[in-house]
Amino acid sequence: MSEKARVIFQPSGRRGEVQKGISIIEASRQLGVDIETLCGEKRVCGKCKIRIEEGYFEKFGIRSSRDHVSEWQQEEEKFISPEQREAGYRLGCCAEIQGDLLVFVPEESRAGKQVVSKAARDIPIEWDPAVKYYCVEVQEPTFDRPTGDLERLLEQLSEGHGLNDLTIDYPCLKSLSDRLREAGGKVTAAVWMDKEIIQILAGEHTDSYGLAVDVGTTTVAAYLCNLATMEVVDTVSMMNPQCKYGEDVMSRITYHMMHDDGLTKMHDDIIEGINGLIAQACKATHRAAEPHQAKANEDGEATESKADGDYPCLTPTDIMDMTIVGNTAMHHILLKLNPEYMGVAPFPPVIHRSVDIKARDMGIGINESAYVHVLPNEAGFVGADNVGVLIAEEPYKADEMQLIIDIGTNGELVLGNKDKLISSSCATGPAFEGAQITFGMRAAPGAIERIRIEPDTLEVDYKVIGRDAWRSYSKPEEMGAKGICGSGIFDVLAELYRSGVVLKSGRFNPQQQSNRFRRNDEDNQPEFVIAWAAETSIGKDIVITQKDVRQIQLAKGALYSGCKLMMRRLGIESVDVVKIAGAFGTHVDREKALIMGLFPDCEIEKITSVGNAAGDGARAALLNRGKREEARWISRNVEYIELTVEKDFQQQFMEAMQIPHMTDEFPHLTGIVAVGRLHQKKQINCIDEALPHV
Amino acid sequence: MSEKARVIFQPSGRRGEVQKGISIIEASRQLGVDIETLCGEKRVCGKCKIRIEEGYFEKFGIRSSRDHVSEWQQEEEKFISPEQREAGYRLGCCAEIQGDLLVFVPEESRAGKQVVSKAARDIPIEWDPAVKYYCVEVQEPTFDRPTGDLERLLEQLSEGHGLNDLTIDYPCLKSLSDRLREAGGKVTAAVWMDKEIIQILAGEHTDSYGLAVDVGTTTVAAYLCNLATMEVVDTVSMMNPQCKYGEDVMSRITYHMMHDDGLTKMHDDIIEGINGLIAQACKATHRAAEPHQAKANEDGEATESKADGDYPCLTPTDIMDMTIVGNTAMHHILLKLNPEYMGVAPFPPVIHRSVDIKARDMGIGINESAYVHVLPNEAGFVGADNVGVLIAEEPYKADEMQLIIDIGTNGELVLGNKDKLISSSCATGPAFEGAQITFGMRAAPGAIERIRIEPDTLEVDYKVIGRDAWRSYSKPEEMGAKGICGSGIFDVLAELYRSGVVLKSGRFNPQQQSNRFRRNDEDNQPEFVIAWAAETSIGKDIVITQKDVRQIQLAKGALYSGCKLMMRRLGIESVDVVKIAGAFGTHVDREKALIMGLFPDCEIEKITSVGNAAGDGARAALLNRGKREEARWISRNVEYIELTVEKDFQQQFMEAMQIPHMTDEFPHLTGIVAVGRLHQKKQINCIDEALPHV
Repeated sequence: MSEKARVIFQPSGRRGEVQKGISIIEASRQLGVDIETLCGEKRVCGKCKIRIEEGYFEKFGIRSSRDHVSEWQQEEEKFISPEQREAGYRLGCCAEIQGDLLVFVPEESRAGKQVVSKAARDIPIEWDPAVKYYCVEVQEPTFDRPTGDLERLLEQLSEGHGLNDLTIDYPCLKSLSDRLREAGGKVTAAVWMDKEIIQILAGEHTDSYGLAVDVGTTTVAAYLCNLATMEVVDTVSMMNPQCKYGEDVMSRITYHMMHDDGLTKMHDDIIEGINGLIAQACKATHRAAEPHQAKANEDGEATESKADGDYPCLTPTDIMDMTIVGNTAMHHILLKLNPEYMGVAPFPPVIHRSVDIKARDMGIGINESAYVHVLPNEAGFVGADNVGVLIAEEPYKADEMQLIIDIGTNGELVLGNKDKLISSSCATGPAFEGAQITFGMRAAPGAIERIRIEPDTLEVDYKVIGRDAWRSYSKPEEMGAKGICGSGIFDVLAELYRSGVVLKSGRFNPQQQSNRFRRNDEDNQPEFVIAWAAETSIGKDIVITQKDVRQIQLAKGALYSGCKLMMRRLGIESVDVVKIAGAFGTHVDREKALIMGLFPDCEIEKITSVGNAAGDGARAALLNRGKREEARWISRNVEYIELTVEKDFQQQFMEAMQIPHMTDEFPHLTGIVAVGRLHQKKQINCIDEALPHV
Repeated sequence: MSEKARVIFQPSGRRGEVQKGISIIEASRQLGVDIETLCGEKRVCGKCKIRIEEGYFEKFGIRSSRDHVSEWQQEEEKFISPEQREAGYRLGCCAEIQGDLLVFVPEESRAGKQVVSKAARDIPIEWDPAVKYYCVEVQEPTFDRPTGDLERLLEQLSEGHGLNDLTIDYPCLKSLSDRLREAGGKVTAAVWMDKEIIQILAGEHTDSYGLAVDVGTTTVAAYLCNLATMEVVDTVSMMNPQCKYGEDVMSRITYHMMHDDGLTKMHDDIIEGINGLIAQACKATHRAAEPHQAKANEDGEATESKADGDYPCLTPTDIMDMTIVGNTAMHHILLKLNPEYMGVAPFPPVIHRSVDIKARDMGIGINESAYVHVLPNEAGFVGADNVGVLIAEEPYKADEMQLIIDIGTNGELVLGNKDKLISSSCATGPAFEGAQITFGMRAAPGAIERIRIEPDTLEVDYKVIGRDAWRSYSKPEEMGAKGICGSGIFDVLAELYRSGVVLKSGRFNPQQQSNRFRRNDEDNQPEFVIAWAAETSIGKDIVITQKDVRQIQLAKGALYSGCKLMMRRLGIESVDVVKIAGAFGTHVDREKALIMGLFPDCEIEKITSVGNAAGDGARAALLNRGKREEARWISRNVEYIELTVEKDFQQQFMEAMQIPHMTDEFPHLTGIVAVGRLHQKKQINCIDEALPHV
């Protein structure tokens, strides 16, 4: 019997031979088919539902059968109804391939291309990059002084620029003698940290380039910068390719622990991903240039003229420096450091301090002599990304008490001012990024990103990614909604509460009359319809279930209780400023954030979104070497609080899951909360109080 | 027509398909057949003579024909007689393959395995290696101090051993967390230069290993040392695989300039060669161990027991440090630095100073985190090898005036004492290593290595490598002589002169009656038979021709005039001590060296052989880091003299070619030169004087 099976995925049509015994998800990876696997194949998310087609498919010459996969698993029952099972549905992570297969991937299981928003902000950075260019004219050797090429170069760098005790990187040394003779001794040397020559170019050059990278659990963003002008030449981003192994940091660590080659796979994927971003960023430098013109050279062969314009097309070898931030888990996987022990109390990382690693040693495809500077970690999961946030926002220089919330799959919190800073992390979980929500999805086209609920009619208006017009200005069939992404999920709880659909405890108000409110056929649980089937591309109603609301409450509760515990540590009752960071942070409606109680009360004008501050920090460290020293210092001087070991953590967390009243605790809610809230207050507060606690 | 041709080499039987159009030498390389190519295919040495066999060879299924190679070249006439041409002889470097061939390689064209003698001497070295082991017990992290693995290790290294500001090499960092947990926190860290952690081993370890390598133009020697005990665990050596591209440094540089991939090829060859030596050295550590015993393990599979004994079998990754010396050309090719400009006045190298390069960046197969320390160059061709000689012999600490002669393919000279040191190089050429001598060969089995000529009878006694008994104690057919190697060539001029066969000018004494003296049939040139055909394995008389004597005179003249010019520079008339270094130096008979006038006069007891002093210097730098600093200092403080630009260089050189009289210049010759010399003096001095000068 053959060891291989032929597998075809529809509708993409991707096909190939795979080893028998692997899961359908593994086969989809090998054949380049994107299937959602938010939980990292832990059989808990149910996102990887696929259908096995039956019969002989002449076009492909294969016979596909449900008997060609391993038997039904108990875990699948949770996600696949008896009807679906009858129709051939399985979970891709459970079904192992035992013979030829035609696999249909339904739209809701397809992982779309995420729309990311991690644009660079305009933060003040003083020019002092780690890599600088120096142009010198090197004398020819004479019989009296037949000095070596390097020694003559070093002499000029010392005399002309005060650079002493320089070393030279080996690949660079190899090119030295030829470069020196190409332009009559005039060369430009790239010097790293006033220590090491990492590039020799013939003639005079001024523009050099660097890349600042933010490796998020879900999104990776990179800023290509001109090191001479500090300009951001291009911003590129992508999904973290490790998402296929699990959505959050713990599931990645688990993937490593469950698979011998887990770390290698995840490491290789992120390196390959970053290299893809590098190529993409360089390619994009064409954009500012004139279109290419083909012309014939003297030999009659067609040749491309050099691109003109502001930025000639860069190549990855033009990138001479790189900085990287990421949470501790992303940091460890990126560096292929064992993340296992970091996941177990007392959560020690392999390394706190920053590292400078040759790009070639990391397999990063920029100039081989360039260094990759990975910023230091704080403690626990609060890693180099938070250090990036700190050096971008500089709360350690402020008088006012700042609370900085970096909302990602892992939430990171910083509280304090110039006197003292503390940090902690909280497992917000992936709910805000669309995972573990029935119709949650990534921010891809078709995702509902904004929601409004009319308190009186409970009519829902919404907007999807990829379409400018809101639902109320569109025909139903124009919407093509597919699910709800992070910012939509963020809106939904505040709107459901404001309009009185859910109560303070998070429970659905059982007394409402809306036709959107109903009980699920299967488990009799309450749910609320956001988009009717006719407005979707998946042919069914998009709903928010009671369980979904609970997931959102868990996420917001984790953040809120984290903030409160930290405030208690510092002995303060209120904060002066709240900064919301993270790719997600840019989409947050600060009023709604206050309504749902994402963080402690604060004047609404003092709540600001600071965008991808972690990425900004990486950029600051790229363009100013003093920021690297500042990062070293602050990473050692911010006090890390392990929230989970606080004595009443559990209690605080449970209380924080509630949606806040306009109490003394939230004076600033007054005036923000609209009619709906008052409406609700009048009507249903009494009912809510009567309900048992979650 | 096929692009490939089948080629079979006899008598080795090696065969294979090769691209048409390549030379027979290139084919021999591809198929692993060793053919002598002393000149690097410059068509000037004539050593690569081969014979094309004609006919259909059923055994191999090929038809070989002289028409299957490119046409006869003018250069071949110099080496191939009309009779040989008739018999199918060609030069392997000239004949290009155009069809199937059976190629016969005559014995004299076969490159034998050289016997090298570069054993380590016992020189005093103080223990202070660049790489040291430190064993520490690292504490577990706690909730109060959840410090990173690296930070806890560094803390112990600082507290216990005063090592501060250490960095860690990236591959080493990757293994850290697991190593730390294997032996309950007890680890041994290898630290390089008190700066960088380059290895983490679980548990306690004391023995670490290093390799000192001397890359000679002709021979590469390596000393595997225990860095803890300073013991030389093993000495290994090999021919420099670059010999096939040319015998001397200039021909290697020429090979680079004539071939686009010349430098790459030569570089790759020496790296591959060194890696072979490393494997060989590690393998040899078995020797001190018990023989392996195969036993069955629990699964019934055969398994090897671990080697016991003084040295368990090492692997290349156990080697944690490496030092390399070599002349400037070997240095540059090893590092893949362009050697082109070094060959042109004023001969600047790419780099003087020492370099520390990660083994992985050089492709050297020791531990990937280890550094390779390449010692600094002086100037011109006087490179790191001479620096090695200097730090091993330390003339800069001596009161007496020392002359150190490193005899290799390139001769290097040092003169001076603690007050001043000067160095220079002279192109001795490959004559002393057997090249450009009619029957010259490498020191391989069958090579005549010692020669004595009886002054009265002019009978010749000799010894060959691989046979203990001299000719006079053997039957002729037992000798199997094949040619004359370096030390034999060294002997021959002194013996020919002492016995009166050649005169002071180097010309053969035309009046002698020996049946060994004759004129060549072809060009009527005088020659002297060293071994009769019956005593050889090549079926013909082994002779020394007038041209051979001239070659030896050129070599000795280069050395002698170099010494004299240097003495003039320092304004001295005589030297106190002469040290002969080089693999070759160990074989030199100091009396004969004085007789032939290899160097200026000196008391015979003050002439010593210091063996492979360059290699000893590499070993010193491996075991004592202070020696690296000493090397840096001396390389900058020895004054390099470019002899070829001295005003009367040519004159001095011509005079130095003569064989010295017992004049005032050589008072110490008195009493050394035996009867024969006096005999000669009486009989023929008058004739010699009458002959025209060379």
